Amino acid sequence: MRKIDQQEIEAFEKQFRTNFVNSLWGFKSVNLVGTQNAAGQTNLAIFSQVFHLGANPALVGMIIRPPETERHTYENIKETGWFTLNHIHPEITQQAHQTAARYNRNTSEFDAVGLTPLHTPIINAPYVAESRLRIGCRFAEEVEIKLNRTVMIIGKVEEVWIDELAIKNDGYIDIEQLQTITSSNLDSYHTTTRIARYSYAKPNKQPEQI
Amino acid sequence: MRKIDQQEIEAFEKQFRTNFVNSLWGFKSVNLVGTQNAAGQTNLAIFSQVFHLGANPALVGMIIRPPETERHTYENIKETGWFTLNHIHPEITQQAHQTAARYNRNTSEFDAVGLTPLHTPIINAPYVAESRLRIGCRFAEEVEIKLNRTVMIIGKVEEVWIDELAIKNDGYIDIEQLQTITSSNLDSYHTTTRIARYSYAKPNKQPEQI
Repeated sequence: MRKIDQQEIEAFEKQFRTNFVNSLWGFKSVNLVGTQNAAGQTNLAIFSQVFHLGANPALVGMIIRPPETERHTYENIKETGWFTLNHIHPEITQQAHQTAARYNRNTSEFDAVGLTPLHTPIINAPYVAESRLRIGCRFAEEVEIKLNRTVMIIGKVEEVWIDELAIKNDGYIDIEQLQTITSSNLDSYHTTTRIARYSYAKPNKQPEQI
Repeated sequence: MRKIDQQEIEAFEKQFRTNFVNSLWGFKSVNLVGTQNAAGQTNLAIFSQVFHLGANPALVGMIIRPPETERHTYENIKETGWFTLNHIHPEITQQAHQTAARYNRNTSEFDAVGLTPLHTPIINAPYVAESRLRIGCRFAEEVEIKLNRTVMIIGKVEEVWIDELAIKNDGYIDIEQLQTITSSNLDSYHTTTRIARYSYAKPNKQPEQI
């Protein structure tokens, strides 16, 4: 194995460095984030910096790049206080990737890529009708990360739409059964195959498959 | 599809709710985090709340639960200023899961689960010798999330150890070739199969496979 140090990473050509560093953290949670502005103009964007923050209350974190560049998702969340997270499966992966194109403010990515907005009474943001697991989130808090001016948006789960068959007896959702995909870097998408589910880890006991 | 609202989630039995909410965000970046205290006592813990924060400088974020409970990883990072991230492949997945057991402070998870600590000159934290992609990080910043008292640790990449064959011409690291695994919930582990890598998304252009 070869060592690549920080000086070498900083000296990489910009796009090479972006690919290299974005690949480092392993496979990612990748979701379509649905928002709209006060006038009801919808927006859809693919995000791979989404992570669990807590189960009770159910909280999610999401990293957004510096808001001084045009960030429709960020502006809409601040304007309405809502967003949705929508899992991606193989049949909509190419469309999901295409939402990353820089469409202008008056174009909805739903129309541009051919996905269907779905509205429910409480959540002031569009879901993706094609998605098999959809989460409606209320904006809860914004945390600025001073080191590089990224922003963490924290959302509180208000509702979940899911095929009940995917929820197992112990609350585990079999997202592989739903064909939820994962991503690496900013452009590679992957299906999964379960190795095992293991029992709760305890000292002096080998984990068992459950 | 069925709607499950926030009141229903809050009324779930505790372990059911933990499984349900931890499954919501899709597949996760799962890594072994290596640390040691000032006396050199090593610690190894599996983390699935790790995410990209920036490419230049190369920054990673990691969520740690409230530090008032015993958190060896958190204490060691604060004591030494260093941690390592180590990708997991199928041959070490069961051992990686077992690091989650609550071993006492004088037991190194390396010994307890049978993985090998590896030290390099600069990084004051142990790598996992068996891992195929290892990242040495310097502690950069701590951000408290007031909503639920979790902590985000931000690290700056100081070195990467990797098989050079996995680095593609454009900087993309083929982590699937390294057999890096992904996880769902806190107990399920998965290998991946690439659907496609798509070209940079631009309006009015279909993404192409690259």
